[in-house]
Amino acid sequence: MSETYDNDRSYVLHSWSVQGKLSPKVITKGEGVFFWDENGKRYYDMGAQLVNLNIGHQHPKVVQAIKDQADKLAYVAPQFAEEMRGKLAKRIIGLLPEEFGKCFFTLAGADANENALKIARAYTGKSKIVARYRSYHGATYGAIALTGDPRRPPVEPAMPGVVRAFDPYCYRCTFGQKQESCNMECAEHIREIIQFENPDTVAAVFMESITGSNGIFPPPKGYMERVREICDEFNVLLICDEVMTGFGRTGKWFGFQNFDIVPDIITMAKGVNSGYVPLGVVAVNEKIAKFFDDTMLYCGLTYSGHPVSCAAALACIDAYEEEGHIDNAAALAAPFAAKLDALKEKYELVGDVRSIGLFGVVEMVKDRETREPLTPWNGAPGPMAEISKRFDEKGISAFVRWNYIFLTPPVIISEAELNEAMAIIDDCIGGAQKAILGK
Amino acid sequence: MSETYDNDRSYVLHSWSVQGKLSPKVITKGEGVFFWDENGKRYYDMGAQLVNLNIGHQHPKVVQAIKDQADKLAYVAPQFAEEMRGKLAKRIIGLLPEEFGKCFFTLAGADANENALKIARAYTGKSKIVARYRSYHGATYGAIALTGDPRRPPVEPAMPGVVRAFDPYCYRCTFGQKQESCNMECAEHIREIIQFENPDTVAAVFMESITGSNGIFPPPKGYMERVREICDEFNVLLICDEVMTGFGRTGKWFGFQNFDIVPDIITMAKGVNSGYVPLGVVAVNEKIAKFFDDTMLYCGLTYSGHPVSCAAALACIDAYEEEGHIDNAAALAAPFAAKLDALKEKYELVGDVRSIGLFGVVEMVKDRETREPLTPWNGAPGPMAEISKRFDEKGISAFVRWNYIFLTPPVIISEAELNEAMAIIDDCIGGAQKAILGK
Repeated sequence: MSETYDNDRSYVLHSWSVQGKLSPKVITKGEGVFFWDENGKRYYDMGAQLVNLNIGHQHPKVVQAIKDQADKLAYVAPQFAEEMRGKLAKRIIGLLPEEFGKCFFTLAGADANENALKIARAYTGKSKIVARYRSYHGATYGAIALTGDPRRPPVEPAMPGVVRAFDPYCYRCTFGQKQESCNMECAEHIREIIQFENPDTVAAVFMESITGSNGIFPPPKGYMERVREICDEFNVLLICDEVMTGFGRTGKWFGFQNFDIVPDIITMAKGVNSGYVPLGVVAVNEKIAKFFDDTMLYCGLTYSGHPVSCAAALACIDAYEEEGHIDNAAALAAPFAAKLDALKEKYELVGDVRSIGLFGVVEMVKDRETREPLTPWNGAPGPMAEISKRFDEKGISAFVRWNYIFLTPPVIISEAELNEAMAIIDDCIGGAQKAILGK
Repeated sequence: MSETYDNDRSYVLHSWSVQGKLSPKVITKGEGVFFWDENGKRYYDMGAQLVNLNIGHQHPKVVQAIKDQADKLAYVAPQFAEEMRGKLAKRIIGLLPEEFGKCFFTLAGADANENALKIARAYTGKSKIVARYRSYHGATYGAIALTGDPRRPPVEPAMPGVVRAFDPYCYRCTFGQKQESCNMECAEHIREIIQFENPDTVAAVFMESITGSNGIFPPPKGYMERVREICDEFNVLLICDEVMTGFGRTGKWFGFQNFDIVPDIITMAKGVNSGYVPLGVVAVNEKIAKFFDDTMLYCGLTYSGHPVSCAAALACIDAYEEEGHIDNAAALAAPFAAKLDALKEKYELVGDVRSIGLFGVVEMVKDRETREPLTPWNGAPGPMAEISKRFDEKGISAFVRWNYIFLTPPVIISEAELNEAMAIIDDCIGGAQKAILGK
């Protein structure tokens, strides 16, 4: 094994893992939608790493911006003004509805959500937050409290004050509804929750615009609009976590733009500069921004508005725009959805497929009638390992969790690349089904 | 005003500020211990920005390492192995006592502390943490719960489970002791706290090796050793926050090395790569590392072990070592302390001075007998503004908070530069005293 592998195994603790079970691939090269391991094997990056590398690997403009800023001025403390920081804040506000006012910069999604929470509590003078079960907002103690995902309970007690709501998961409706009987109980029960919690204590409803790593659930038509109405009725803020859904992922600049709503606060990370340098953003509307003109903002971090991170984001946003990558994701939405539908048609173990833009998931089941998941929720991979194994063999990198296969390629992917990758994925699922069913 | 200033004022929310009162300097250039504003005015960076720029501005080796890694491979997700990530983990463990085993990488001090907390709770199966009042551990909801600083209460409710202890603040001893009567009550009462809380519920004692932004309190001789003994007596972990005190700040690689102790977990950020790219580290001892060989590590973040951050850290650590900067900080400790003592001798408004290595503070008082602070604790700057104003005029950048003037220059500072800067500071304090006392 290589020195890099040995160093890793001897000295590095990996995220979300039983360390002794790991045998991580050593990655040495990336370009566009591909990366290579140390043996020169190429992988289609159908996860965009962790749904962050929207611009793909080693985009020359983003790399150059990092190098230029490092040469010019690598660090300036947050109390000062700096060129890239100011330009980026202006650029981001320019991408948002006119209601938006200012940006607070952080390092990633978790601390963007932490700070959005603080801002919402300070602005409203209220402390409770309504968040959904099927959600992930980060792993620090405020962000993990927002999170409903089962990675939360093992680290509790976390921050108090989060009240939990259910999800628009139409394939497994918590409310027992079918499409024809649905009265959008998933939105309506949020109103009941706010009433019981007392609207005077609820600061915000906090949700991913479209749920990410818990299963990708594009909501029923009118869901987000109804949530916005409920928030307005009770003077509660609507905070949209756009960490995964921002910057072209759903075929729009931001996920919420798929709906007829304007959130009060938006959090971003990942796609903002594709993670070439750590960056998170909290964008707030003008009213909230003005509130802090004469009220202390109790938020802060040493690397707020880091010049190198901001320079990378400016270049990345320019590249999205100039090179038409957001439009590309929009244009590929239908062909991508068609490929997913074809998988559902072809393989009996595929229970459901869902996508919006290039944000897609394949949900595997044992039985299409009972919809029993192919592997138990939050359990061991079981038969899903047959899929992961084939992906690995055939050079597909994609996030497989529980009975979900997430397909979230860089938004720069060409139709030809998408077709080729989807053909390999089709083949892998077919092979896995054969192995699992023995036929 | 410049475009950068206008963008900043229109679109950027600044840390820990009433936004309407700000008039931030626009910074355009940095080199070594100096930076320049957009008008070409030069400042001695006697704060090392936010006590992070230990290597000074624009160190060519660190800049080159960032550029090289950006060219090679800007991002690899945490589930993979990558060259810089593995090398840095090995390098950091090599700087620590032999008990240490592995590193978990984060983005800054706050999330390093958040993750240290999670690791301590998981490893011990206990949830309470003892932390000190005069402390700052970061602003996310776990880190701010650890923090005792008055920036905590305005954002509560934060994470529960933190129990508060008092500080080794000899100049204003909470226990009413003088040097001759001291029995290190500041350490002993921690034992009493652990007993009352029940040692079976206390996971860790969490402290900055030497308190930073709450006043810099080098503890009485034997304090940290006694804290270590108490932790051992009750099977409680000792976690040292080395975010400010690491990487030469105190004249050693780490602050805890000034004492005869080995912590169980150490958190780092700032000086690790001087903040050229965001990075934090949680280093754990071998026993804790091994525990996670067969137990899930419920910690994770998209940018854990970011290749560009790690490359910058490797170059920065190499520069500290090869160019002798840690030794430089050690060598300047005595001349720096002598300059601080001279201020105390010369100016009646200087109540106390404290330092270790290049980590120093001047504490201003109205009256040396009563020790009444020159400006109320956590109040408006009042007469302290006379000092800040003069610093600004004379080109000194230093963190002034409450009645404290923090002096924490880059550890690369030469004795001639230190002497020059301290002469200007002397002059500013003298001018301020004259203005305040009217004589």
